[in-house]
Amino acid sequence: MGIADQVSASIRAISPYQPGKPMAELAREMGLQMGAIVKLASNENPLGMSPMAREAIARELADLPRYPDGNGFELKAALSARFQVTPERIVLGNGSNDVLDLIARTFLNPGDEAVFSEHGFAVYPISTLAAGGKPVQVPARDYGHDLDAMAAAITARTRVVFIANPNNPTGTFVPGAQLEAFLARVPANVVVVLDEAYTEYLPDEDRYDSIAWLARFPNLIISRTFSKAYGLAGLRVGFGLGSAELIDLLNRVRQPFNVSSLALAAAAAALKDQAFVARSADINRRGMAQLIGAFGQLGLEWIPSWGNFVTVRVGDAAGVNRRLLEQGVIVRPIGAYGLPEWLRVSVGLPEENARFIEALQVALHPGAGQ
Amino acid sequence: MGIADQVSASIRAISPYQPGKPMAELAREMGLQMGAIVKLASNENPLGMSPMAREAIARELADLPRYPDGNGFELKAALSARFQVTPERIVLGNGSNDVLDLIARTFLNPGDEAVFSEHGFAVYPISTLAAGGKPVQVPARDYGHDLDAMAAAITARTRVVFIANPNNPTGTFVPGAQLEAFLARVPANVVVVLDEAYTEYLPDEDRYDSIAWLARFPNLIISRTFSKAYGLAGLRVGFGLGSAELIDLLNRVRQPFNVSSLALAAAAAALKDQAFVARSADINRRGMAQLIGAFGQLGLEWIPSWGNFVTVRVGDAAGVNRRLLEQGVIVRPIGAYGLPEWLRVSVGLPEENARFIEALQVALHPGAGQ
Repeated sequence: MGIADQVSASIRAISPYQPGKPMAELAREMGLQMGAIVKLASNENPLGMSPMAREAIARELADLPRYPDGNGFELKAALSARFQVTPERIVLGNGSNDVLDLIARTFLNPGDEAVFSEHGFAVYPISTLAAGGKPVQVPARDYGHDLDAMAAAITARTRVVFIANPNNPTGTFVPGAQLEAFLARVPANVVVVLDEAYTEYLPDEDRYDSIAWLARFPNLIISRTFSKAYGLAGLRVGFGLGSAELIDLLNRVRQPFNVSSLALAAAAAALKDQAFVARSADINRRGMAQLIGAFGQLGLEWIPSWGNFVTVRVGDAAGVNRRLLEQGVIVRPIGAYGLPEWLRVSVGLPEENARFIEALQVALHPGAGQ
Repeated sequence: MGIADQVSASIRAISPYQPGKPMAELAREMGLQMGAIVKLASNENPLGMSPMAREAIARELADLPRYPDGNGFELKAALSARFQVTPERIVLGNGSNDVLDLIARTFLNPGDEAVFSEHGFAVYPISTLAAGGKPVQVPARDYGHDLDAMAAAITARTRVVFIANPNNPTGTFVPGAQLEAFLARVPANVVVVLDEAYTEYLPDEDRYDSIAWLARFPNLIISRTFSKAYGLAGLRVGFGLGSAELIDLLNRVRQPFNVSSLALAAAAAALKDQAFVARSADINRRGMAQLIGAFGQLGLEWIPSWGNFVTVRVGDAAGVNRRLLEQGVIVRPIGAYGLPEWLRVSVGLPEENARFIEALQVALHPGAGQ
């Protein structure tokens, strides 16, 4: 037997993640200038990052030849102060992707099941398969989580349940009270992962205090990221909150220097600039209104979204996407998420949204007006 | 059963990695100014990084709110040009630690064995255990790899062999011809990982062309890092080279955005500045002579080293280390590597080495002269 044949069937079954097309790649392929490209494909923050994060990075640059602090003392102290959890209950990740991956590696033995929703984040099945686990995908209800069906899908082999709230790529939202009721139904020996990558975009009326639940549900792990509202996607930093016992296990599996020194410094500084986060949420609300207003005028169906992106039904998504790319506009086809007629569009700055809407009109009616 | 009880025994058996003490931590503990501290504990580059890497970082800062290129197109192109391997044969890692970890996750199923040497890098057993594998540690010969004993330790359950050349933390070196003969003896279904984190420090007469071996040994994976001679430890970036088939498997398990955009840009630029790497190797040779000259005068035993560090026998290493810390000097105790009487010292700038030597004299004879 060759080496590849010895690799577990679950690893061989992984479909690699399909990222948003990098702008430089489109520029190479289409012979476009970078400045002519609008990318609304990866749910990034169009405002950039906090000036405080930028200053922290500048201060840290001289120290780059040094290894990062493997314990992340300063960032954990900042998180601890903000969220009122002790540092022993915090694990830092190379993006929240790393936190999700650590959870799968730690809690899934080969054959164990991980439950998640249809139209859920692609990393859940990838990390599950990479850990030798069995992905159990529960049909969605109205493009979002069907918590009753998910509770019913839990078996004696289930070790992890992943829930994203808001959900990516559909943007759906489960009210806090429903999540809390779900947590109360899950057996105590099953880890529930609440992936709150987009939580900073929630309007006040939908906010819920999941961190307070940690005291009652020692099987709960909350994951969050600095890649979205904090605008640090390129640096890779996220975190998980949970019981000290579970966090200790994740820290054993964690690579000792998984978060770069720039990411540690920038995240600690970014956390202090909540005014920037509020501005980001505000510009997102206005951009969302701009996008769905245009969808309404174009007679397109969309899924109401609580995130910094919105998913819209265009029919021939592959063709529309190709014609958007030809115009230098990058959005995300989500056929791999079971939504072959839909495109996911990140909310940009007003002028970026306008460029997309204009390009979309052309892409939807390629023959018109020529 | 609680959640922790369900976690695999091998994960529960992991002894977390003990990093070099961060300077900020010592400053907090001892009430010292950062400028008063000399850190020679983590085999970092005392020259810093190439100005070309610094400029690449500055150019990339504006793009930080964007996700990195998950395929690392530019860095792979730079590596491909330098090492004459196609991009399909390159996997990028969040440091070479990530590459080692991906190898363990991909090729070790629960119960499979990974063979490595006594006094080998701590990440080999950690990644092996995290993957559910069984670490098989082979006794060292003269503090380095005993390749005959390692070949004899390979069983039907062995899937991976880790070899570091030069070895960390002992600095020993296996000549290329011996490695090549070893590769010819290893069964074709066992992955041999050649960890060359310190290869840039080898003098010309000891260089060997491991990359040329890839064509003959499809079970060989070479790992290298930008954390040492390239001076980018804080950014986290390394790479692995191997057959397209094995690299494809590693890329399935790899987190899609495991390397930050700054790390991608800085590494591609650093690779072009081989004059900086040569200067780094040169200052290392001179610093090494300074350190071992002092050890000789102090009557201390040391292990001849091919890396950017040297391991010295001080007897009561815990006590000597404590007295070094009190003087603001951080080196690395390596009791966890089975060398309780030894300290590993990274080669610094001439003035850092001198500060260490002075502090070592005090630490060895705490009562003298007072």
